[in-house]
Amino acid sequence: MSQGFDRELRFLDDLALDGEVSRGPSDRGTHAGSYDTAPADEVHPDAVVFAGSTADVSAVLAAADERGVPVTPYAAGTSLESHATPVEGGVSLDLTRMDRVLEVRPDDLTVDVEPGVIGGDLNERVARHGLTFPPLPSSGAISTVGGMIATDASGMGTVKYGEVGDWVRALEVVLADGTVIGTGTGAAKSSSGYNLTDLLVGSEGTLGVVTRATLGLAGIPEQIRGGRAVFPTLADATAAVRDAVTSGVDVAKIELMDSDAAALANDYSGTDMPERPMAFVEFHADHGVDEEVAFCEAVFSAHDVESFEVDDGDGMADLWTARRDITYAADEWREGASMGHPGDVTVPIGNYPEMIRAVKEAAADHDLFVPAFGHAGDGNLHYFAVYDHDDPDESARAERVYDDLVERALELDGTVTGEHGIGRGKRAYLRREHGDAVDAMRAIKDALDPNGTLNPGKVFPDE
Amino acid sequence: MSQGFDRELRFLDDLALDGEVSRGPSDRGTHAGSYDTAPADEVHPDAVVFAGSTADVSAVLAAADERGVPVTPYAAGTSLESHATPVEGGVSLDLTRMDRVLEVRPDDLTVDVEPGVIGGDLNERVARHGLTFPPLPSSGAISTVGGMIATDASGMGTVKYGEVGDWVRALEVVLADGTVIGTGTGAAKSSSGYNLTDLLVGSEGTLGVVTRATLGLAGIPEQIRGGRAVFPTLADATAAVRDAVTSGVDVAKIELMDSDAAALANDYSGTDMPERPMAFVEFHADHGVDEEVAFCEAVFSAHDVESFEVDDGDGMADLWTARRDITYAADEWREGASMGHPGDVTVPIGNYPEMIRAVKEAAADHDLFVPAFGHAGDGNLHYFAVYDHDDPDESARAERVYDDLVERALELDGTVTGEHGIGRGKRAYLRREHGDAVDAMRAIKDALDPNGTLNPGKVFPDE
Repeated sequence: MSQGFDRELRFLDDLALDGEVSRGPSDRGTHAGSYDTAPADEVHPDAVVFAGSTADVSAVLAAADERGVPVTPYAAGTSLESHATPVEGGVSLDLTRMDRVLEVRPDDLTVDVEPGVIGGDLNERVARHGLTFPPLPSSGAISTVGGMIATDASGMGTVKYGEVGDWVRALEVVLADGTVIGTGTGAAKSSSGYNLTDLLVGSEGTLGVVTRATLGLAGIPEQIRGGRAVFPTLADATAAVRDAVTSGVDVAKIELMDSDAAALANDYSGTDMPERPMAFVEFHADHGVDEEVAFCEAVFSAHDVESFEVDDGDGMADLWTARRDITYAADEWREGASMGHPGDVTVPIGNYPEMIRAVKEAAADHDLFVPAFGHAGDGNLHYFAVYDHDDPDESARAERVYDDLVERALELDGTVTGEHGIGRGKRAYLRREHGDAVDAMRAIKDALDPNGTLNPGKVFPDE
Repeated sequence: MSQGFDRELRFLDDLALDGEVSRGPSDRGTHAGSYDTAPADEVHPDAVVFAGSTADVSAVLAAADERGVPVTPYAAGTSLESHATPVEGGVSLDLTRMDRVLEVRPDDLTVDVEPGVIGGDLNERVARHGLTFPPLPSSGAISTVGGMIATDASGMGTVKYGEVGDWVRALEVVLADGTVIGTGTGAAKSSSGYNLTDLLVGSEGTLGVVTRATLGLAGIPEQIRGGRAVFPTLADATAAVRDAVTSGVDVAKIELMDSDAAALANDYSGTDMPERPMAFVEFHADHGVDEEVAFCEAVFSAHDVESFEVDDGDGMADLWTARRDITYAADEWREGASMGHPGDVTVPIGNYPEMIRAVKEAAADHDLFVPAFGHAGDGNLHYFAVYDHDDPDESARAERVYDDLVERALELDGTVTGEHGIGRGKRAYLRREHGDAVDAMRAIKDALDPNGTLNPGKVFPDE
């Protein structure tokens, strides 16, 4: 469904763009939503602009803003919260052609990039200098840096390296009215003026469009070890993970997988993981990595670890396979059933054992299959029900499980989304989590985008 | 000078505060400015409110905002940019009585504090649990956590641990109209809504008053080594520091001191440091610290280090003495001369050698004594001219040196202030650094504080 901005969009024909405008049904169709958008919720934009430069983004926004035409930024479309759905039609602003790595500065440990560069391509490029961009999310091989900035993405390495936002030093941003601003500097720190960089990071394309970013880099570690620990119970596994983190084990990744997720993966991917609660770990160091592994093993031993196998880096291979295939695996698990909306709650690490317990309890209470896995080191938990979406009763129970667990995360002083963002799907929880702070967020939105041009229908609930 | 809000301030007599109101000349005098405010720039507030609770802060702000009375937050008054000067009179809102450590949670590595707690007191309290708040600034023994949050303070440990803002998980904030909001959560990460926490951090009391903070903590390292390296030239010292950082040496502190600063310190404090370019380093680790020291030494050797002495932690003692006494030392250096406005520029680490060179060149060009020292690891440089403030010619040259170096830092893709904030003294540079982004900052200020109640006269230039 399009809202019909055809007339207002005639200005597109008069712009001398470095990029390209498309009104073809195919392009409009591919820009109707994100990876996760259900067919019923897709909205075709009236036009797709493939931006070729900052000037393009500025010209399109200035004209659209003046004419009341909504603009929805689009890149790889890998969002799990329908960020790229042009809810009110208008322009889908595609940034994938702005995908250059502009300059690598090994002497500063920084790199300048355009927003459309794929995470994996960035890392391939900086690897020539022995460097890496450490906070890539699990989707890094297919998602863009611009999208990662828009959601303040994070992933397996966050327990050691922080979120994407922690590595953004400076941004070039086009505001709703077409004004191009620079935020931040090349310096590693600053106390100069308001921190617009961190305000823009995670604002999901509702405050501005990032057209260039200066990112920090780190050296590729000399030593890597990967391993898998099997625990007798899920309670042991979660307590072990918590204690490893709070004891100061210098772990680069620490992932939890419950027996249901292991069974799901084995069934689909042909892996032969123990169908038991497991922690997958990875250690990065320039020296002394084996001492760190031993420290971790000592902590795990206090929680009755049954086995802890460590190798030079392939120890997480099964996990990677499972994570890559988990959507397909869920959809093949049971005839007619498929994966529900993925949960992304995050709680203080001390409350992680209780959060995991709540997931398994909710699954049992509502008689649903709910595998759980997540970036346990930073308290982030993913879960989803596998159910028959055409069965109203199963669907209702799945929704209850999802809601109950979001509620539980908030009770445990957590957040409704650790890395996926609010998008459309979690808008109902925004006020539940932030209370009156939502009004402050709304005031900022209105101040920077008074006409509501940028990515309407996202983040804020209809109130 | 007071602007005379006596009549509007009658509301203070009707509030049932947990704290206290003072209109006494002594209290008004002690709240007339920050540590650095020149006598001529002092402004006495019409009243001082010693807030006893969040409710007090909310009640005072709600009433003041309604009546057009300015409110200037005040804590330890250690600002180096006159943040606490009540430029337009009104209320000085003193938060030093809200100084409790509310809850330490070793299982989450977090702590809840009130804003008036002194950094050193916080660390003493959490040390009982083997924990520390790592990003304390050099002033940490006398400055408050609230003040550190207001300026996004940082210091010697920032090269390893980041800025204060990187350790703030959640805030309770009172907005200009008295609304109390919560930002962030107890979780280590979140992608939920706009990042108000990082917007408030470093906003210098102009967007809201922090009444409570949840901070992250880390374990106290098992191994500490401190050391001092002497280099033949300043160029060698700065290149060595740059290469140590970009090579990935895991250094917790890396400070530079030029021969002028060393001479100044020796003269006043009776230390006997070599009056040569030096780098002071500190290493923190749980194991393998000596391997890290050796790695650092290898890097330094490539830059002709003359000596590198390392011990179990006292190696930085001379530096600490010098840093503690540097203001007094400057004021006694030459009859009739005293320290000028301290520079706080920060540049990308690759440009640090050039920034240091520019300082010494400006000193020579303008025939002034300008010692330089700083948190070299994160590109932060402090410098000041020692001159006769009553001599118009020397004063003009000192101002030129200051301006030229700020300008040079911006040319080198840096920032005018790494940790002190803009306050009053650096407002003239705000637009030079941020360009049109200042308008976005101003729009946010107007959206959250439409009446301009909070800390007027700070951050933004009069335009």
